[in-house]
Amino acid sequence: MNEIIDALKKFRDERDWQQFHNPKDLSLALSIEASELLEAFLWKLPEDADPEKIKEELADVFSFAFLLADACDLDVKDIVLAKIKRNEEKYPVSKAKGSARKYNEL
Amino acid sequence: MNEIIDALKKFRDERDWQQFHNPKDLSLALSIEASELLEAFLWKLPEDADPEKIKEELADVFSFAFLLADACDLDVKDIVLAKIKRNEEKYPVSKAKGSARKYNEL
Amino acid sequence: MNEIIDALKKFRDERDWQQFHNPKDLSLALSIEASELLEAFLWKLPEDADPEKIKEELADVFSFAFLLADACDLDVKDIVLAKIKRNEEKYPVSKAKGSARKYNEL
Amino acid sequence: MNEIIDALKKFRDERDWQQFHNPKDLSLALSIEASELLEAFLWKLPEDADPEKIKEELADVFSFAFLLADACDLDVKDIVLAKIKRNEEKYPVSKAKGSARKYNEL
Repeated sequence: MNEIIDALKKFRDERDWQQFHNPKDLSLALSIEASELLEAFLWKLPEDADPEKIKEELADVFSFAFLLADACDLDVKDIVLAKIKRNEEKYPVSKAKGSARKYNEL
Repeated sequence: MNEIIDALKKFRDERDWQQFHNPKDLSLALSIEASELLEAFLWKLPEDADPEKIKEELADVFSFAFLLADACDLDVKDIVLAKIKRNEEKYPVSKAKGSARKYNEL
Repeated sequence: MNEIIDALKKFRDERDWQQFHNPKDLSLALSIEASELLEAFLWKLPEDADPEKIKEELADVFSFAFLLADACDLDVKDIVLAKIKRNEEKYPVSKAKGSARKYNEL
Repeated sequence: MNEIIDALKKFRDERDWQQFHNPKDLSLALSIEASELLEAFLWKLPEDADPEKIKEELADVFSFAFLLADACDLDVKDIVLAKIKRNEEKYPVSKAKGSARKYNEL
């Protein structure tokens, strides 16, 4: 992942774009890209989405997610593994298995 | 990153959740988490967001992004590096340096 | 508002689009348009957004919001006024005045 | 609609919240609420969403949409009817009937 983040930062710095990359606008950008990804599935069944569009937009989502993690000094692996641990308590297997319910409705 | 994806899939499979994880609903979930991350900055200056909330929600964003990449058989590093290459053409340094303009307004 | 909803339904029915307009995809569309509106402000100060883009995208947001209200048989005025009443309890003036805090942090 | 907007502004002004309601943060709020509405449908078929949640979140979407229209001095009916007209050109009945394709793919 460091290779990805370094490539993203090099691209950003070549264009002198760090001035725009405060965490609020990075989150805005991430949300916008997540919606562009969603558009691949609009009016369609999951299996009918254009795979090229999914690939393109998911790449954009990851780009801003990695930049945001870097801007906020967060290690991606650490925060995801920590979240999985917390989710193990919110969604115990005995209650959550086979259920799509949110934790406060289990 | 494989370690992250394996941990996410183990958590999912322990709970028999793969039945819900079609790409359309995964994109929905990703978009919803991106908005929860955005909420950390609502009504606030970038520097005033709660760092714990950013960490929590960014972890959720990455979780669904990795699950979606896996569901669509995409390699995260490959697709991001490929997108950076395409962006080098859309945003040549000579035109894009120091500018926040979208590529079709350069 | 009935005039707006009638015009939207006429446009939809001329194109035989009701088949696509289930509430889930209408909500997807609404979310996508809300993000396109957000893009008007990306990397910018609030006052620097393009007013034409705001007008265009906000019109799209309202279009899908009205179609969704109609699809779910909801009266827009009733639901908004009811929500304001509920919010008066969640955000009593004595606690909420001048504060951007969410109700569970008051 | 004026009755709705007046009620929203009265609620806002009683709490001295206009200081937070710049168009960028209003768009953020609108996008966040659109995602909360989307959550009603997550992992579910369209017909299985909780109608109370749809009502609640759609009311929030409309609240911020109306506040944004007012902040940007836009007449909701005018902008939606104007957008329908533009869409009649982007989506001529002869090409768009029965099709979910985006205008640039017709």
